[in-house]
Amino acid sequence: MGEKAVPDDAWYGIHTCRSLENFDAAGEVLPLSIVSAIVRLKAACAAANEQLGLLDPDCASAIRKACRAILAGGYDDQFPIDIFQAGSGTSTQMNVNEVIANLAAVELGGQRGDRRRVHPNDHVNKGQSTNNIFPSAIRLAAVELNRHLAKAVAGLVASLEEKADAFAQVPKSGRTHLQDAVPITLGQEFAAYARSLEKARARLAAAADTLLEIGVGGNAVGTGINTPPAFRSLIVAALNQSTGFSFRVAENGVEITQFMTDMGQMSASLRLLAMDLLKMTNDLRLLASGPYTGIAEIRLPPVEPGSSIMPGKVNPSICEAANMACIQVAGYDAAVAMACGLGQLELNTHMPLIGANLIKAFEVLTRTVTMLDMRCIRGIEADAAVCQRNFESSAGLATILNPALGYDRVAALVKEGLASGKNLKTLVLEKQLMNKAALDELLAGAFGPNES
Amino acid sequence: MGEKAVPDDAWYGIHTCRSLENFDAAGEVLPLSIVSAIVRLKAACAAANEQLGLLDPDCASAIRKACRAILAGGYDDQFPIDIFQAGSGTSTQMNVNEVIANLAAVELGGQRGDRRRVHPNDHVNKGQSTNNIFPSAIRLAAVELNRHLAKAVAGLVASLEEKADAFAQVPKSGRTHLQDAVPITLGQEFAAYARSLEKARARLAAAADTLLEIGVGGNAVGTGINTPPAFRSLIVAALNQSTGFSFRVAENGVEITQFMTDMGQMSASLRLLAMDLLKMTNDLRLLASGPYTGIAEIRLPPVEPGSSIMPGKVNPSICEAANMACIQVAGYDAAVAMACGLGQLELNTHMPLIGANLIKAFEVLTRTVTMLDMRCIRGIEADAAVCQRNFESSAGLATILNPALGYDRVAALVKEGLASGKNLKTLVLEKQLMNKAALDELLAGAFGPNES
Amino acid sequence: MGEKAVPDDAWYGIHTCRSLENFDAAGEVLPLSIVSAIVRLKAACAAANEQLGLLDPDCASAIRKACRAILAGGYDDQFPIDIFQAGSGTSTQMNVNEVIANLAAVELGGQRGDRRRVHPNDHVNKGQSTNNIFPSAIRLAAVELNRHLAKAVAGLVASLEEKADAFAQVPKSGRTHLQDAVPITLGQEFAAYARSLEKARARLAAAADTLLEIGVGGNAVGTGINTPPAFRSLIVAALNQSTGFSFRVAENGVEITQFMTDMGQMSASLRLLAMDLLKMTNDLRLLASGPYTGIAEIRLPPVEPGSSIMPGKVNPSICEAANMACIQVAGYDAAVAMACGLGQLELNTHMPLIGANLIKAFEVLTRTVTMLDMRCIRGIEADAAVCQRNFESSAGLATILNPALGYDRVAALVKEGLASGKNLKTLVLEKQLMNKAALDELLAGAFGPNES
Amino acid sequence: MGEKAVPDDAWYGIHTCRSLENFDAAGEVLPLSIVSAIVRLKAACAAANEQLGLLDPDCASAIRKACRAILAGGYDDQFPIDIFQAGSGTSTQMNVNEVIANLAAVELGGQRGDRRRVHPNDHVNKGQSTNNIFPSAIRLAAVELNRHLAKAVAGLVASLEEKADAFAQVPKSGRTHLQDAVPITLGQEFAAYARSLEKARARLAAAADTLLEIGVGGNAVGTGINTPPAFRSLIVAALNQSTGFSFRVAENGVEITQFMTDMGQMSASLRLLAMDLLKMTNDLRLLASGPYTGIAEIRLPPVEPGSSIMPGKVNPSICEAANMACIQVAGYDAAVAMACGLGQLELNTHMPLIGANLIKAFEVLTRTVTMLDMRCIRGIEADAAVCQRNFESSAGLATILNPALGYDRVAALVKEGLASGKNLKTLVLEKQLMNKAALDELLAGAFGPNES
Repeated sequence: MGEKAVPDDAWYGIHTCRSLENFDAAGEVLPLSIVSAIVRLKAACAAANEQLGLLDPDCASAIRKACRAILAGGYDDQFPIDIFQAGSGTSTQMNVNEVIANLAAVELGGQRGDRRRVHPNDHVNKGQSTNNIFPSAIRLAAVELNRHLAKAVAGLVASLEEKADAFAQVPKSGRTHLQDAVPITLGQEFAAYARSLEKARARLAAAADTLLEIGVGGNAVGTGINTPPAFRSLIVAALNQSTGFSFRVAENGVEITQFMTDMGQMSASLRLLAMDLLKMTNDLRLLASGPYTGIAEIRLPPVEPGSSIMPGKVNPSICEAANMACIQVAGYDAAVAMACGLGQLELNTHMPLIGANLIKAFEVLTRTVTMLDMRCIRGIEADAAVCQRNFESSAGLATILNPALGYDRVAALVKEGLASGKNLKTLVLEKQLMNKAALDELLAGAFGPNES
Repeated sequence: MGEKAVPDDAWYGIHTCRSLENFDAAGEVLPLSIVSAIVRLKAACAAANEQLGLLDPDCASAIRKACRAILAGGYDDQFPIDIFQAGSGTSTQMNVNEVIANLAAVELGGQRGDRRRVHPNDHVNKGQSTNNIFPSAIRLAAVELNRHLAKAVAGLVASLEEKADAFAQVPKSGRTHLQDAVPITLGQEFAAYARSLEKARARLAAAADTLLEIGVGGNAVGTGINTPPAFRSLIVAALNQSTGFSFRVAENGVEITQFMTDMGQMSASLRLLAMDLLKMTNDLRLLASGPYTGIAEIRLPPVEPGSSIMPGKVNPSICEAANMACIQVAGYDAAVAMACGLGQLELNTHMPLIGANLIKAFEVLTRTVTMLDMRCIRGIEADAAVCQRNFESSAGLATILNPALGYDRVAALVKEGLASGKNLKTLVLEKQLMNKAALDELLAGAFGPNES
Repeated sequence: MGEKAVPDDAWYGIHTCRSLENFDAAGEVLPLSIVSAIVRLKAACAAANEQLGLLDPDCASAIRKACRAILAGGYDDQFPIDIFQAGSGTSTQMNVNEVIANLAAVELGGQRGDRRRVHPNDHVNKGQSTNNIFPSAIRLAAVELNRHLAKAVAGLVASLEEKADAFAQVPKSGRTHLQDAVPITLGQEFAAYARSLEKARARLAAAADTLLEIGVGGNAVGTGINTPPAFRSLIVAALNQSTGFSFRVAENGVEITQFMTDMGQMSASLRLLAMDLLKMTNDLRLLASGPYTGIAEIRLPPVEPGSSIMPGKVNPSICEAANMACIQVAGYDAAVAMACGLGQLELNTHMPLIGANLIKAFEVLTRTVTMLDMRCIRGIEADAAVCQRNFESSAGLATILNPALGYDRVAALVKEGLASGKNLKTLVLEKQLMNKAALDELLAGAFGPNES
Repeated sequence: MGEKAVPDDAWYGIHTCRSLENFDAAGEVLPLSIVSAIVRLKAACAAANEQLGLLDPDCASAIRKACRAILAGGYDDQFPIDIFQAGSGTSTQMNVNEVIANLAAVELGGQRGDRRRVHPNDHVNKGQSTNNIFPSAIRLAAVELNRHLAKAVAGLVASLEEKADAFAQVPKSGRTHLQDAVPITLGQEFAAYARSLEKARARLAAAADTLLEIGVGGNAVGTGINTPPAFRSLIVAALNQSTGFSFRVAENGVEITQFMTDMGQMSASLRLLAMDLLKMTNDLRLLASGPYTGIAEIRLPPVEPGSSIMPGKVNPSICEAANMACIQVAGYDAAVAMACGLGQLELNTHMPLIGANLIKAFEVLTRTVTMLDMRCIRGIEADAAVCQRNFESSAGLATILNPALGYDRVAALVKEGLASGKNLKTLVLEKQLMNKAALDELLAGAFGPNES
C-alpha cells in the first residue's frame, strides 16, 4: 500500500500513520482505558511466550518493561486513533504493538523503527490476534472501571442511608399516582433509594463476573491456531498475577470471539443503574419543587443561581445534570445492544464502538454518582413542618382510621373535611371520636411493619 | 415439498397451509389493514393488466369482484398467517392470491382449488412480486390510517383550544425546573399543547406524503423485469381512482424495493407525537396532583375509583393509560428503525415487522388520542382559587416588579416574604410601594405580549 | 361516579364495567398469564389471612376454591380489560377481586353481585393493594414463563450440539470482516452457537432469581400498613407451597413497590438472548446464501416456495421470521427500560406496560426458539464439498503454512495463487514444497487446540 | 452562595466558576457550535435592544464587537462547562454573558470584572432568558451544521452516481433474501444508493426548515414578559441579516419553550440517514466479501493491512468505521427522543443533552459521509468477470426465460442444471431451444424498464 513517513518524534509506526489518515468519524480517540488494558494483555502474553520458550528472555523482558512505561502514563499521546476504526480494533492494536516494539527496541540498544530486534507482529503480537486481544481488553477495562463505580455507588448508598436515619422521624404523606396516599416517613423514602442502589451494585458485580471469562490466546477465530495448548492458561495466570483479578480461560474460544453478549449484559446493567438514578433524581426534584407553589418537602443544597431574571431562583441543577447523564447512558446502551446483535460469522466488527460506549457509560455514571453524593444528597434538608402538614392533611391518611372507626365513618369524615377544609385529625378530635393520645398512637404506627 | 390437504371450507390454498404450519412466533396474525391494502393493489393490477391486454376481461373482472367481496369484510378469517413469516411478506401475499383466485374461479363457474381458470400466480399475481406489492401495501395502509389519526388529533386540538379559551383568565404561576417561575395563564398552557399537536399533525402529513411514492410494478428487484413500460403508471392510476389518494410511480424502482426509510420516517413521526402526548399527560398528572399534598391546579374527570383501601382516591388513570401507550409506540419505533437499517442487497426481509409495528403504532395512537380527548381533556376543570393563590405567592412573581420597583427593592421584598410568610402582593400594598390599582394593572400584564 | 349495569352473565362487577368503558388504547387485553398469577396470589393471601384469623375459614375456603376454578381455565373471558389501563393495574386487580368474590359468594350459597358474604375489597383483597399484588404477579408470571423458555432454549442447544458433532469433520474457511480467514470446522461454528445460548440461559436464570423477591403484603406503599407483621411471610409460604418456587419476602417493601428494575433486568436478558439469536440466524442466512451466487456452505430445510415468479427459489423464511421476532423483542425491551426509569415517588404507574411487554417477549422468544429448533436447525445439512473447496481456496489458509514454510515464501505463494487462480494446496504440491502427507497433517491440525 | 475567586486570566466570571465546580459528569465541554450560536443570538439581541432604545449605542456596539471577537475564534477556551449542567443550559448561557460583558467592558475602557459598565445580566442578557436563548441556539447550530452535512451528502451522491454510470454495463445476479434473484446491473445498485441518499437529504432539509422557527425573545416561559411587542421580530431580523438564514418568530412562544420536538425530528432524520448508510455499507461489505470464499463482485480500495497474522488480508475497514458511526448516531437519537418526551410544565430541562447529541450526530455523520466518499466509494472497482459469471449462473435468471419458453420447460431446465452443474445459458444453447442471438437479446433486456 505504498510508503508513508512516520513523524520523527512518534513512537508508533506506519500502521498507525495509515490509520490516522483513514479514520476521523468519531472525532475522538479510543478511550485510554482500553489501550491500557491492551498493554496489560501484551505484558501477560510476553510472559506466557517466554515461559513457553517462544520468546527469548531479553526480548520478553524488554516488552514487559515497555508495557510498564506506557502504563506509568508517559506515552498517552502515542495512541491517537479515532474510535471508529477497523471494526476489530486492529488499528489501535497495531498502534500498541508498534509503540511497545519501538520502546523495547530502544531498551535493547536498538533504534526506533528497527523491526528486527523487536518486531511489532512477530514478537509483541506473538500468538495473538486483535480478534481476541481487543475484546479481552474491553473486558479487563470494564472490570477495572466497575471497581471504581462500585465504590462510588457504595458511597452514595452510605449517604442515602445516613439521610434515611436522619429523616426516620419525619412523617409525611406517601404519593401514588402522584395522588395523596397512605403515610410514609421521609426516611423510608431514602432507605428505598439506598436499597435500589445496593441491588444495582449486585447486578453490576454479577455482570462483571461474566466478563472475567476471556478469549485471549484464541487467535484469529478463537481456535487457537498456531499456538500451543498451554498458551491461554499461562496468559491468564500472568494477567491475574499482575492485576489481582480472577480471569478465566474461555470455555469456548470461538463463541467468545464472535459474541459480545457479556458486554451487552454489562451495558444493560449500567442502563438499569441509570434508570434507578433517573427515578431517584426525578423524585428529588419533585419533592424539592417550590418554594411556594410546589411540594417543597425537602431542600436541595443550592449550587448556583438558577435564573438571570428571577431573583432568588435556585434550581435542582445537580439532579438535572444527573438526569441527562442517565439518559445519555441509555443512549450508549442502545448503541451497544444493536452492535451486539450485528456480529457476522467469526467476528463482530463493532468492537471499538461497544468498548467505547461501555467505557463512557462507566465513566459518566461514576462521575454522576459521585456528584450526586457530594453535591446533592449529603446536603439535603427536610422541611419537617411541610412534611408534617402533608402527613396530617393527606387524603390517604384516612386509611389508617379504617380499622378503628370503620370504613363508612371514615368516608363521611373525608367528605366533611373536603367541604369544611378541616383535616382529618382536627375532625376526629373535635368530634371526640378518639382522644389525642389514642389518635397519636395510631398515627405513630402508620408506617407499618416495614419500618425497622 | 410434498402434498398437503387444504381444509374444505378454506378459500386459501396450499401455500397458506404451509405458512400456517411454519409460522407462529408472534402469536398474532398480520394486521388486516395490510391485507386490505394488498387486495386493493391486486384490483388495481388486474385493471392495469386488462388495459394492457395481458389479462382477459372476464378474468380481470372476476378478480376485481373478488377483491371487492374481500374488502366488504366477509372473508377476514381467511388471512390467518402470523406476523413473523417470510421476511418479504410472501406468505400473506400468496394467501391473498389464493383467496382471490378461488373466489374468482367460483365467480366464473369454476371450483375452489381449480387453478386453471384463475391461477393465483399467473393471473392474480401477474407482473407482481411480493417485493413490491407488500411494501406498497404498507404505504397504502399507513396513508389510510394517517387520515384517521389526523382526524383524531384535530379533535383533540379543538378540545385543547376550547380549554385554552375557557382558562384564558386563570392566572397561575409558571414553573421551570419545577420551581416557581414567572406568571402564566392556565389557558396559555393549554394553547401550547394545542400548538404542539398541530405541529405533530403537520409532521405526520409530510411523512404521509413521502409514502405516496410506491414501487408497485417493479417486480422482484424493482427493475420491472417481464413487465411493459406503461404497467406502473396504469396501476397507480387505477389505485388513485379507487382510493382517492395521489400515489406516484417510484422515481427509482430499485431503491424503493430495498429501502424502507420512508416508513421509518413515518414511524419516527408517530414516535414524536407519542413524546408530545407523553409530555402533555405528564404535565396534566402534575397539575392535578393532590388533592391535598400536591399542586392541584386542575381537576381531571374521575373515571374509576383509584384504590381499594384508600377511600375517595381518584387517580389520573386516563393519563396513565396514555403514558403507557406512548412509551409502547416508542418501543414499536425502536423495532422499526433497527429493521430499516438491516436490509440486505435487493431486499429488506423485515417488512412484515415494519408494517405490523407501523400499523399498531397508528392504531394505538389513534385510540389514545381519542380516549384522551373524550375521557379526559373535555372534562378538565380549573381550580381557579388554587391557581390564583399560586399566582400571588409564586417566587417568580417578583420578576414583574423589577421594572417598577427596581431589582434591589424586589430582592429585599422576596427575603422579607420568605421570613414573614407574607406574599409579595400583601407586602407591596402594606408598605404602600404601589397602590392596588397600579399593582393590579401590572399583574394583569404579566402574561406577556405572547398572549393573543 | 354513578350507577352502571353489569351484564347478567358476567362474573365481574361494576369496577370492571367502568374500566371496560374507559380503556381501549392497546386494543388487546392484558395477558392472561398475569391474571393467573394474580389469582394465585389471591389464594395465597386468603390462606395467610385465614391463618392469622382475619378471614373466616368458610370464606377463605370459598375464595381458594374460586381461584382454583379460574386457574382451571373456565373463566378466561371474564378478564377483558385492555393492557393500557390504570397505571398500577388496579383495573385488572379489581376485575379479579370481583370475579373471585362472585364465584365464592355463589359457592357459599349467595348470589352473584351480593357483596355482603364475600366482598371483593374487604375479603378477597384483604391486606392487599394493587401496588404490591400487581408487580408480584408480574414476577410470578415471568418466573413461570422463564421455565418454558429455558426448556425451549435447552432443546435448541441440544440440536445445535448435535449438529456440532455431525459437522465436526467438515473443514471450511473461517471469515472475519466477511473476508477469508483461518480454517474452522462447521462443527466449531455450531458449537459456538450452542455455547452462546447456554450462557443466555444462565443469564435468564440469574434474572429469574432476582424476581423471586416479592413485595406482596406491603400494601399501598410497601410499608405494610394495616397488616400484621407475619402477613408477608405467610403469604410467601403459601405461594411457595402452591407453586413450588422459592419466593422471598422483600428486603425493603418500599423499594420493591417503587422500583421495577428487577423486571428491567429480565427484559434486558431477553433482549440479549434475542441479539444472540439474531446473530446466529443472520449467520445461517449468510452460510446458506446461494444456491449459485452465494456462500452455500449449508442448506436450510425448505419450508415453502420463496417466490411466485422465480421457479425453485427457496428462502430462509424461518430465519427471517426469527430475525423479526428478535428485533421485536428489542422493541419490547426499549419500552420496558424507559418505563422502568419513569416511576414517581411511591409508585411506578407503568406496570401493565412493563408486565405485558415482558410476557410478550417471553412468549415470542419461546415460540421462536422452538420454531428455529424444529423447523430449521434440525434439518440443516452441510455441503461438505463447498466447505472443502472454501477450506482449500481460502486466502486465510496461508496462515497455517507460516511456521512450516516461513512468512515470506507463503506471501509469495499467495501472490502467485492470486495471479494463476491456483489454490495454495495445489501450489504447494506442484512445487513439492511439502509432500501430500505432511500437508494433510498440517491441514488436519488447522482447527487449533480449541477443538475438543 | 458565598464568594469565589475568578482566575486572573479568565474572561468569564463567578457564575462560570461555580458551574465548573458543580459539573463534570460528561467529562466533555458543551460543543462549541452551540456556544457560537448563543453568541450570534446575543449580537442580534443587542441590535434589537439598541433599536428599541433599551441599550445605549456604545454598550450595544461593544457587545456586538465582543461577539465578533469570540466568533473569530480567539476565546474558545473560555467556555469550559461540562455538557451535563443546569438542564436549561443556564450555566453556559451565563458563561457567555460573562465573557461578552468582560470583553465589552474592556472595549469601553473599563476593567475585566467591572459589572457596572456592561453587566452580564442587565445588558448582555437584556430581555433574554436561557429558556429561549439556549433552544434557539441549538436550532441555529443545527441549521448551520445541516448545511455542511447536506454538502457532504451531495458529494457522496455524486460519487455514487458516477459509479452507477461506470457500472451501468456490468450485469450480475440480483439477490433477495440473500438468494439468487433476477438480474440487475451493478450500476442499478449504485443508482439506488444514490437515490436513497437524495431522499435523506430532502428529509434533512425539511427538518431544518422546521428549526427555522425560534422562540428567542419569549423570555422565561415564552410569554415575552418584560419585553416590548416588537422585540422578537427585531431579533429575528438581525439574526437573519447576520446569518443569511430565514428564521421565523415562533407562532406560540410557550409551546416552543416547552417542546423540543422539532429537534427530535431533526435527530430522527439523522438516524434515518444513518440507517441508510448502514444498509449501504453492509451491502458493500457483502459484495466485497472474499477474496476466494465470498461474493467478491466488487473490490473496495485497500486502506490498511487487515491482519497481523494473515498475510495479504485486507478488510473493509472504512465501511466498518461507518457502520459503527451509524449505530452511534442511533444511540444519540435514542437519548434525544427520550429527553424530548420528558419535559415538564414550562420547560424541558434536558436541553444541553439534546443539543450536544444533535450536534455530535451531525458531526459524526458529516465526517462519515465524507470518509465514505473519499476513501471508499470513489475507489470501488467492479470485478466484471465475477459479476458476469454470477449473472449467468444465477438461479434467478430462469425468470427471464419464462415468457419465451414457458414456466414448465424452464423449471425442468433449472432442475437439469442443478444436477449437471451446467448453467442455464449453456443448456439453452446445447438444446437449441433458442439461438445465441435471440438469447443474448433476451438477456440484454433483463434489467427491465427501470433502467434509464
